[in-house]
Amino acid sequence: MVVKTLVLVRHGESQWNQENRFTGWTDVPLNETGKNEAKAAGEVLKEKGYSFDIAFTSVLKRAVHTTWNILEELDLHYIPVINSWRLNERHYGALQGLNKAETAAKHGDEQVLVWRRSYDVPPPPLEKADKRWPGNDKMYAHLPREVLPFTECLKDTVERVLPFWFDHIAPELMRDKKVLVAAHGNSLRGLVKHLDGMTEDAVLKLNIPTGVPLVYELDEELKPIKHYYLMDEAELKKKMDAVAQQGKAK
Amino acid sequence: MVVKTLVLVRHGESQWNQENRFTGWTDVPLNETGKNEAKAAGEVLKEKGYSFDIAFTSVLKRAVHTTWNILEELDLHYIPVINSWRLNERHYGALQGLNKAETAAKHGDEQVLVWRRSYDVPPPPLEKADKRWPGNDKMYAHLPREVLPFTECLKDTVERVLPFWFDHIAPELMRDKKVLVAAHGNSLRGLVKHLDGMTEDAVLKLNIPTGVPLVYELDEELKPIKHYYLMDEAELKKKMDAVAQQGKAK
Repeated sequence: MVVKTLVLVRHGESQWNQENRFTGWTDVPLNETGKNEAKAAGEVLKEKGYSFDIAFTSVLKRAVHTTWNILEELDLHYIPVINSWRLNERHYGALQGLNKAETAAKHGDEQVLVWRRSYDVPPPPLEKADKRWPGNDKMYAHLPREVLPFTECLKDTVERVLPFWFDHIAPELMRDKKVLVAAHGNSLRGLVKHLDGMTEDAVLKLNIPTGVPLVYELDEELKPIKHYYLMDEAELKKKMDAVAQQGKAK
Repeated sequence: MVVKTLVLVRHGESQWNQENRFTGWTDVPLNETGKNEAKAAGEVLKEKGYSFDIAFTSVLKRAVHTTWNILEELDLHYIPVINSWRLNERHYGALQGLNKAETAAKHGDEQVLVWRRSYDVPPPPLEKADKRWPGNDKMYAHLPREVLPFTECLKDTVERVLPFWFDHIAPELMRDKKVLVAAHGNSLRGLVKHLDGMTEDAVLKLNIPTGVPLVYELDEELKPIKHYYLMDEAELKKKMDAVAQQGKAK
């Protein structure tokens, strides 16, 4: 049996992570820390002898730059890079751009807790005229308006990621291509939930650390044989705790 | 009538240009001058208000990096970038890696002149066991061996570029997409020869300057209405003379 290789990388820190703002589909670039996290991910992949036949990423520049930095380290400029809005971060609706304090002041601590802890309760939707609605952004001009979210709960994100998995990522794995996916906390949660058959509760508790390659070895039916991070356990625990803290406003 | 927009950019200086070596399919990176040429191309495109829906490039990193640098300047991380070996530089066969003096010493000045000035006389072919044959390079492992060149005359390059034009680039233009192609001196000569219906003699004399966007406005049948460089004439002449000089070993 050919063991199939899928590697997931969550992009690192952006300017808005530092400011603790809900980013979502806002196209904020990586900061220096984030760029270094991407390079470090590339370095560890190189050191461990990984290579890829194709890479997938979102259309948001923090994920695209993460991909480019990893390919640079691996000297893999020549592989195809496919980007799609379906791998974007969760859309945070009217919360996008607010920081933690602003959100609590506007909606109350309890409500914020509900949005954070629930799988299927979305934050308040954007108005159609709002600049933050993707329908008003040239990046999404080629897409039917009806597919563009006004807000998303985690369930919505998972549901729009999976068609891309089935139609684009999975077929490459089925033909034994080695696949890299560089994306976001919540779009990667969607892939991991599907791969590992996780419950809604379990996926809400899952905090994928940034910049650490997460390797899935898959069988012929794309069922996971095993998965592991390319980082030793002590270091990983420190990193995951930090992400869980920072994750309070993604 | 919708005027269709195609912009061609030839990548700038690499390490081997400086050393005056035949580069061809050797995957040499841009040097600092070359990176700055790419950024300058992006800047002038931005200044003149150009945008793109899709970008095409070769699989060689000097072209891929040129593309990335241009997209960076234009803030266009989200558009698809399609790379293909068919947009690669001309393959120089057994001359690849030799500098001008070495080539003259090995083959004589007259023979070198014949290779340089003829449309259909290829340099000596590589042996199948030669590391420089693309069939021995993992970059091309997914391609049938029989399509990979042992050497190319300009005619061969033009003939392998055109299927990619017809099947991938032209269809995007037919549906009014704005297209960027960042590639190499000879693969771009192939496109320009086809677009402008140039003779073999004329295309041999054509020296596209590096890093200067060459804009084609095309009609509904993809016939050129006009074409122009995004650079004023005096500056352009200086640049083209320099390229013609440097072009003596590409």
